[in-house]
Amino acid sequence: MTTRAAVLSIGDELTLGQIAECNARWIAHELLRVGVIVSEHRTVADDRSAIAAAITALANQVALVIVTGGLGPTEDDLTREGVADALGGARQVEGQLAECPQARTQIEQRFATRGIAMPLSNLRQAQCPVGATLLKNSHGTAPGIAAQIDRAHLFCLPGPPHEMQLMFTTHVLPLALSLVQDAGGAAVGVCAVHSCGLSESLAAQRIHALMVRTANPLAGTTASCHVVTARIRATGNAAIDGSLQRAACEVERAWGVYAFGRDEMTLAEALGEVLRARGECVAVAESCTGGGIGQSMTSAPGSSEWFDGGWISYRDDFKCEFLGVDEKLLQARGAVSEQVACAMALGAAQRANTRWGVSATGIAGPTGGTHDKPIGTVWIAVADRAPGVDGISTRAREFRFSGNRASIRQSTCTTAVQLVRLAALGHAELRLSSELTSSGTRIQ
Amino acid sequence: MTTRAAVLSIGDELTLGQIAECNARWIAHELLRVGVIVSEHRTVADDRSAIAAAITALANQVALVIVTGGLGPTEDDLTREGVADALGGARQVEGQLAECPQARTQIEQRFATRGIAMPLSNLRQAQCPVGATLLKNSHGTAPGIAAQIDRAHLFCLPGPPHEMQLMFTTHVLPLALSLVQDAGGAAVGVCAVHSCGLSESLAAQRIHALMVRTANPLAGTTASCHVVTARIRATGNAAIDGSLQRAACEVERAWGVYAFGRDEMTLAEALGEVLRARGECVAVAESCTGGGIGQSMTSAPGSSEWFDGGWISYRDDFKCEFLGVDEKLLQARGAVSEQVACAMALGAAQRANTRWGVSATGIAGPTGGTHDKPIGTVWIAVADRAPGVDGISTRAREFRFSGNRASIRQSTCTTAVQLVRLAALGHAELRLSSELTSSGTRIQ
Repeated sequence: MTTRAAVLSIGDELTLGQIAECNARWIAHELLRVGVIVSEHRTVADDRSAIAAAITALANQVALVIVTGGLGPTEDDLTREGVADALGGARQVEGQLAECPQARTQIEQRFATRGIAMPLSNLRQAQCPVGATLLKNSHGTAPGIAAQIDRAHLFCLPGPPHEMQLMFTTHVLPLALSLVQDAGGAAVGVCAVHSCGLSESLAAQRIHALMVRTANPLAGTTASCHVVTARIRATGNAAIDGSLQRAACEVERAWGVYAFGRDEMTLAEALGEVLRARGECVAVAESCTGGGIGQSMTSAPGSSEWFDGGWISYRDDFKCEFLGVDEKLLQARGAVSEQVACAMALGAAQRANTRWGVSATGIAGPTGGTHDKPIGTVWIAVADRAPGVDGISTRAREFRFSGNRASIRQSTCTTAVQLVRLAALGHAELRLSSELTSSGTRIQ
Repeated sequence: MTTRAAVLSIGDELTLGQIAECNARWIAHELLRVGVIVSEHRTVADDRSAIAAAITALANQVALVIVTGGLGPTEDDLTREGVADALGGARQVEGQLAECPQARTQIEQRFATRGIAMPLSNLRQAQCPVGATLLKNSHGTAPGIAAQIDRAHLFCLPGPPHEMQLMFTTHVLPLALSLVQDAGGAAVGVCAVHSCGLSESLAAQRIHALMVRTANPLAGTTASCHVVTARIRATGNAAIDGSLQRAACEVERAWGVYAFGRDEMTLAEALGEVLRARGECVAVAESCTGGGIGQSMTSAPGSSEWFDGGWISYRDDFKCEFLGVDEKLLQARGAVSEQVACAMALGAAQRANTRWGVSATGIAGPTGGTHDKPIGTVWIAVADRAPGVDGISTRAREFRFSGNRASIRQSTCTTAVQLVRLAALGHAELRLSSELTSSGTRIQ
């Protein structure tokens, strides 16, 4: 039997859209890894009755309710009161709070050891709903709350992700694991396979059998700035008998070298693995991305082993002076052209003395588009200074990315990293989605 | 009277935490701008009864329910069925769907004009819950749905943000405005003021009077990678009598030049305004950020007017060869040092022939930290080649950023942009939060 959970987030700034709610996704993902399915997220305002009503409703639906936020010291932190009301509601009495002496001592000590006077408002954080217990928070002043409402386990954790995540791991995860064990072991397993260069429709078509709604393991695809991911979920026996791994391998086979990694692996890390194994390095020459390709590559820890550096040649004269792009070429063809992209990539690789060079030059918008080169037109070039072989090969490719300035730039960075990876793997000829053919039509 | 709304997002991949839900925040923010308060977000799985139950519950609570997702052509897209059940429930009959001939024609035409055969499954998207109407989607195959449940207005929009946002603006916003008018005009107004360089506690302390829970306008602060934002909300008369603007000015006065803009303004755009007005340019020299400062600056449209380019000097020999950093200096002081940071910033400005140069060199982790230079240690230098004045002034400052590799790098980029902005405004001497004093302690 599947163990189900729900996540409740609390805060005016969340319901009003002033800041992004990000705890629910993290919690759902962590629970899924141990076999608990989160079936609902809710976010309500700093409103005592709304909090109590949401807790009561969710505790009726699932075995585990995790609440984040509303545990601070100010008057608009009302999770304690909401829990008290929910507990009172279950016992048909009004919700009450009582000070927990141990929690008070811990809060006072936290301020004392930092030599700061404790504002009186922080004493609110030592208040415990009657019928619940407080959970120690080693990284902040807000204790958590644990309680049982009917047959559901309730945990309230502070909103700051750093504190929440530590307390989740300490207090919630062990209980989640025991609930899964009691229910007969993990009934669900998940795996993600990432790719870059296939359109989502083509990627989905290639793994069609895994996407039929009745399949188990069952795959679904998601796409974000040219990374297409298959998210595979196996339930029951399929979660533990190796079916999940076989399904992941099947996706990787179907997607070939476009697939670059699983789960937490990033494209930059995948490129790093390839280059590190070959003892090769890359340098970048960026125009429209303004440094984003380098930033993306160096997001991988240890990237100094294979990433040398690069040039952000945003202005045209910079391209000529520091990358050796011919000024006449630039004037004749324009900065967004095959020839300039090639000259930039080669210039970077030669100057940095790396095997690989990659460049991007394009029109990210919101202005600057023309009939022939609309916004989203980007040339990406990869230079290969293979030692010994017949010298130097540089090839530029034209892309037509959609979206706004940010997504065009992000798509360019992702595609550039994948093009270097494919070239280093010996697949420089593979076509990518959004690439234009020589006749100017887009590849599907 | 305040008009209230709720947002319901639908999808297994959302409840399971496989991808981030991002529509709810956008919708809440847009509604707030016209005076509608979103009081709850919910996310439920691709489950017909869960969808129907959530719609029914939310329609009981608020005047406007906006649903996103679950309108695709596949078997797990069940929003249509959920709406039908919710409508049927209200009328005490079972939910039913009927094909909408107009929608079918539009979907067929969409495929025909692209020369693609329409999969039969797409006909599901022409199905309309009985009692509802379909809304035209000009950017995708999924029509939206509009219905009335009791006294609540229900809108279902497709999940992809691009399609959702266009349909929201076309179909939902006009109704939201008319609901607000019917309720006596906008009862709420919001404004955000952004800053960089003050710690959140100090920023909050300076605007304390606006943060008292009973204040109207009421301000709250949020912090993300060294940008601290005051979010101000005014209700009732204060929303329309100028109080909101006065409160925003009060925050800006209290925060001084650390405040860089309001609402959608980014720090890079704020820097661009300053440099454009002065006709000055900047060049970058990046080590630990790997291109992120350049990327951040060029995120601002039109940045080519004031951003020249830069060097990603990730490896030490790159710093020497292309930025003129003295190799002996590098060996004596280490790459993460005041002297190397200064040499990098100056080298970039001199080579690019810009007035301003900015550099960053630090330890972003996850390895590489030492006792003296723990992970998070970053030197940022700003070079000023003021023409005419006594030549060149370059000053490096040491920061100690917390968090993981990604957040240390992000904080470095943000801080570097603000340091150039402050210097260009003539405030090169101002200290920033996370900056170390000469005694090595952090500024508060």
